[in-house]
Amino acid sequence: MFHKNLNLEMENKMMAHEKTLSVRTTGKGTYEITSPVAEFVRQSQIQTGQVCVFMQHTSASLVIYENADPSAQVDLKNYFERLVPESADYFTHTLEGPDDMTSHLRMVLTRTSETIPVSRGKMTLGTWQGIFIFEHRRAPHQRLIRLSIVGV
Amino acid sequence: MFHKNLNLEMENKMMAHEKTLSVRTTGKGTYEITSPVAEFVRQSQIQTGQVCVFMQHTSASLVIYENADPSAQVDLKNYFERLVPESADYFTHTLEGPDDMTSHLRMVLTRTSETIPVSRGKMTLGTWQGIFIFEHRRAPHQRLIRLSIVGV
Amino acid sequence: MFHKNLNLEMENKMMAHEKTLSVRTTGKGTYEITSPVAEFVRQSQIQTGQVCVFMQHTSASLVIYENADPSAQVDLKNYFERLVPESADYFTHTLEGPDDMTSHLRMVLTRTSETIPVSRGKMTLGTWQGIFIFEHRRAPHQRLIRLSIVGV
Repeated sequence: MFHKNLNLEMENKMMAHEKTLSVRTTGKGTYEITSPVAEFVRQSQIQTGQVCVFMQHTSASLVIYENADPSAQVDLKNYFERLVPESADYFTHTLEGPDDMTSHLRMVLTRTSETIPVSRGKMTLGTWQGIFIFEHRRAPHQRLIRLSIVGV
Repeated sequence: MFHKNLNLEMENKMMAHEKTLSVRTTGKGTYEITSPVAEFVRQSQIQTGQVCVFMQHTSASLVIYENADPSAQVDLKNYFERLVPESADYFTHTLEGPDDMTSHLRMVLTRTSETIPVSRGKMTLGTWQGIFIFEHRRAPHQRLIRLSIVGV
Repeated sequence: MFHKNLNLEMENKMMAHEKTLSVRTTGKGTYEITSPVAEFVRQSQIQTGQVCVFMQHTSASLVIYENADPSAQVDLKNYFERLVPESADYFTHTLEGPDDMTSHLRMVLTRTSETIPVSRGKMTLGTWQGIFIFEHRRAPHQRLIRLSIVGV
């Protein structure tokens, strides 16, 4: 009886894992990272919990977006070029080039962190949902994304 | 002494629960889901932790919004009609109708996941805060929202 | 052997803590709260997990933003004055003054909750990232931010 309780406790114990993803971007646009996040969840062996995806930069962001039709990616990019144009004449933060201040604003309007439930060992993404880096700078960048999972 | 420690461990053990909400929407606008999320938290019996609310769609989103005055809901809807108009002439993702591409962009500008602290067994929402589905499509849709809670 | 297992279990056990931050704001703009959140994480003694930062108001929000160059804060403020002007003639939610409805919309376009991974006892913020209250009202306000951490 005593041992049984203890085993149960061991089986159900809380786990927490973390990992860093490093992704090379090559200009403005979206880069899907669903597969490496799913692999991180699988390796953690956690069945029920939450996985957090966190972008460690202020000129790139995250979106959970339609991953089936490439035209949705094109329109996303073009919309943000209009919503936060590079050439705003009132910007004062201009030392790093015309795409720097706009990149901070596009980041603020999208997401730095996303938390996704984990059920039966998998992320509960909807049928058409993918996790994407949304890169806002023109030049290539190495982007670091922190992954963290907690659960049982 | 030994048994006491073990009981303490059992009492304080980590828990993780999850559930799916299914909500019928009937056109653009906000639909409050605070009550079913609060009920999920109550049933989990978790006292301290975090509850994650996750929208499994790319043409509807989540907002934590003022839940007292209906006029704030009206203005929210009208603002987004202006911020992301249906009729943008540069959209290429148009097969599913004029409200489809705008719905993806309105989703990206609001939220797919929200995480809310749980304290003394309840969500720590502010006095005027409610959790809402923000539906961006005109036609009725069945929307799935995943709930996940972890804590002690 | 038996005791060793039990000690291991005790060392690795799940913890969950929470706290409320109260911050006085004095008009529109950003207010950094990175230090008190980092102190909360340190005091929790959690090494691996997730910290959730939650704004309990609908007319102020959160951003994780560039914390090095003040000009980036100025441009953020000026951009939102243009994106959601105070004087929109179609607003119906106007009883609390011209900066009230705009504050709800600016809140919806930024964040109410952010979740940040914790690794080796510290938040995994990037080099230039700080956590900020984004205040949208003109008058001074006392803002409550709930902090919650779970992990091992």
